[in-house]
Amino acid sequence: MEKERETLQAWKERVEHELDVVVAFWLEHSHDQEHGGFFTCLGRDGQVYDDLKYVWLQGRQVWMYCRLYRKLERFRRPELLNAAKAGGEFLLRYARVAPPAKKCAFVLTRDGRPVKVQRTIFSECFYTMAMNELWRVTGDAQYQSEAVEMMDQIVHWVREDPSGLGRPQLPGAPAAESMAAPMMLLSLVEQLGEADDELAGSYAELGDWCARRILRHVQRGGQAVLENVSEDGEGLSGCLGRHQNPGHALEAGWFLLRHAVRRGDPKLRAHVIDKFLLLPFRSGWDPDHGGLFYFQDADGLCPTQLEWAMKLWWPHSEAMIAFLMGYSESGDSALLNIFYQVAEYTFRQVSAASWSQRCGGDRSCCRRAPRVLSLTGNEGRFPMCF
Amino acid sequence: MEKERETLQAWKERVEHELDVVVAFWLEHSHDQEHGGFFTCLGRDGQVYDDLKYVWLQGRQVWMYCRLYRKLERFRRPELLNAAKAGGEFLLRYARVAPPAKKCAFVLTRDGRPVKVQRTIFSECFYTMAMNELWRVTGDAQYQSEAVEMMDQIVHWVREDPSGLGRPQLPGAPAAESMAAPMMLLSLVEQLGEADDELAGSYAELGDWCARRILRHVQRGGQAVLENVSEDGEGLSGCLGRHQNPGHALEAGWFLLRHAVRRGDPKLRAHVIDKFLLLPFRSGWDPDHGGLFYFQDADGLCPTQLEWAMKLWWPHSEAMIAFLMGYSESGDSALLNIFYQVAEYTFRQVSAASWSQRCGGDRSCCRRAPRVLSLTGNEGRFPMCF
Repeated sequence: MEKERETLQAWKERVEHELDVVVAFWLEHSHDQEHGGFFTCLGRDGQVYDDLKYVWLQGRQVWMYCRLYRKLERFRRPELLNAAKAGGEFLLRYARVAPPAKKCAFVLTRDGRPVKVQRTIFSECFYTMAMNELWRVTGDAQYQSEAVEMMDQIVHWVREDPSGLGRPQLPGAPAAESMAAPMMLLSLVEQLGEADDELAGSYAELGDWCARRILRHVQRGGQAVLENVSEDGEGLSGCLGRHQNPGHALEAGWFLLRHAVRRGDPKLRAHVIDKFLLLPFRSGWDPDHGGLFYFQDADGLCPTQLEWAMKLWWPHSEAMIAFLMGYSESGDSALLNIFYQVAEYTFRQVSAASWSQRCGGDRSCCRRAPRVLSLTGNEGRFPMCF
Repeated sequence: MEKERETLQAWKERVEHELDVVVAFWLEHSHDQEHGGFFTCLGRDGQVYDDLKYVWLQGRQVWMYCRLYRKLERFRRPELLNAAKAGGEFLLRYARVAPPAKKCAFVLTRDGRPVKVQRTIFSECFYTMAMNELWRVTGDAQYQSEAVEMMDQIVHWVREDPSGLGRPQLPGAPAAESMAAPMMLLSLVEQLGEADDELAGSYAELGDWCARRILRHVQRGGQAVLENVSEDGEGLSGCLGRHQNPGHALEAGWFLLRHAVRRGDPKLRAHVIDKFLLLPFRSGWDPDHGGLFYFQDADGLCPTQLEWAMKLWWPHSEAMIAFLMGYSESGDSALLNIFYQVAEYTFRQVSAASWSQRCGGDRSCCRRAPRVLSLTGNEGRFPMCF
């Protein structure tokens, strides 16, 4: 027990150190002093290799700076707060494609002109997270009303009428529900309800709805988490129906775990640990080389996505969070051991990759180690070269 | 010289054998007897792992069967012709999303309902190729008028008014021109003009326009072929501007080579061999492990596409065609040697992969060799497990 406490303490220090390094990197290299907002396409040396501004990442960085400022004494520094506010102003001014309509762009130019719009809810979700967290830090009510109004719009799109998202209605398109929308909504329910009984109460039914929707993705007699199910919660045919994303399932797992704890539901907690933590880990972990596969096919066929066998940064982060949280809530040391397994793999890959900083741009590192993890905080879709 | 002739003859026989095997595979497994058209998501054992019908592949298969029937005695078999006609009928009936409007779907359900529509010209190009080739084989004028009318529509979208494609006009979207559109149009100019002086004449100006547009993608003082340039033919900033696709450049190369030969332009021929064959091969060939990279960054940064370092089936096919054609037109044995290098690599990878047929669906082959080439004739985006 004493030994376990020491090991956990050592990991805590290691992760704290990593967080300090990562935050210092983004503080130094990502701030756009001219237009506000953040550069998010950064090389290992901090070089801005593209100045496009992805709205997910703008929102995430505002959220992250505010959360750090609010929760950790050592990050209560004016430069974080000021950068978060500048990022928030950039989002307020430019994220919406045609204000006052709420639809946000997916990518903006450096100076805020829309480049691409996705017909999904996710830019708007990151916008909401950013605004709510800015309100918590600054107390400025404008941010909170932005967050709540955007949340209302998202809920309307998801539960009532998606036509505002602009998706074409095609007669052959399957009425599929992906796990992503209820997952993301559930995380917003937690974000907006934190220490706010009134809002938490008004979103309680929504949280339960999200949880039920996510739980429908446990299919095949409880033996698989599938990314897509029908509107009735049944399995779908073809690649779409067999598609699995272990990192996503683990992420849904820790969102559900928090929900179960908030609801005081130990039965749900146990179910979530079994189906959203242990099951995707068992099926998604590469037994030969370690690491979580990006995509899998529930029948063991080869996924059609070229990148399916790659080991991306973000599923490993989600797994570390999920298993540590699972252990923390249940005390089950099997979950802690999986945390160690994932964390050791992840940090080992990061160390193995760090020599490639020496490549000096001749691409030899990319050629030799193109599948290694990204550690600089980008979304998986924007991998870093290292 | 005698030795060279023998080596070439041996390769011809090897490729002929491969063609026989591939055609037999598709004849046996891909025909949808119930709805017409073709299954294109096939496992190595012929299993249909998805019954979606990608319009590019429907058009390509109709074209391929007709071309084989028309050009090679041993394929002049009723089963090829009948399957091509059934595929053509499927396209005629279902490819267009809202007939008589010409816009075609990207994917259809097995029974022909549209699943997805791309806001590009490529489904329509494959439709045109299929119809023109069906006309050549059957003499049925309906097919040719379908081909010519669709071609008129495509040219209108590309040269006059793209609004019918449905792309949103966003103020931050760069006015970029990809190499794909003029490339594809140039191949249609050749397809429609074959042994048809009248049509060849009416498309002559279009062919020259396409060639000029493609040639503008040679940038950086002749040292790089870039996928995207501005409307004025200048380089663009960011990842978009630095994006390179060696297989695409080689494919453009052999389209241009045919164009130069048709136009009797030896200076253009030499330029094309230099810039679209040798240059992309030199920059795109992996010096360590062989094979052509899928994507590259002209400044040597790491491309953001996760699949950039993978070795796909199709660029190697394009390279083999390009270098053999280059040799055939120029007599330069350096080009023949590159053909040998690419062909040996490609067939070696195929052989190395074939043992994995024994994996019996436990995914061990995918886990061990997920990057190998596909040999069953799919587009690169729909890789096969083997």
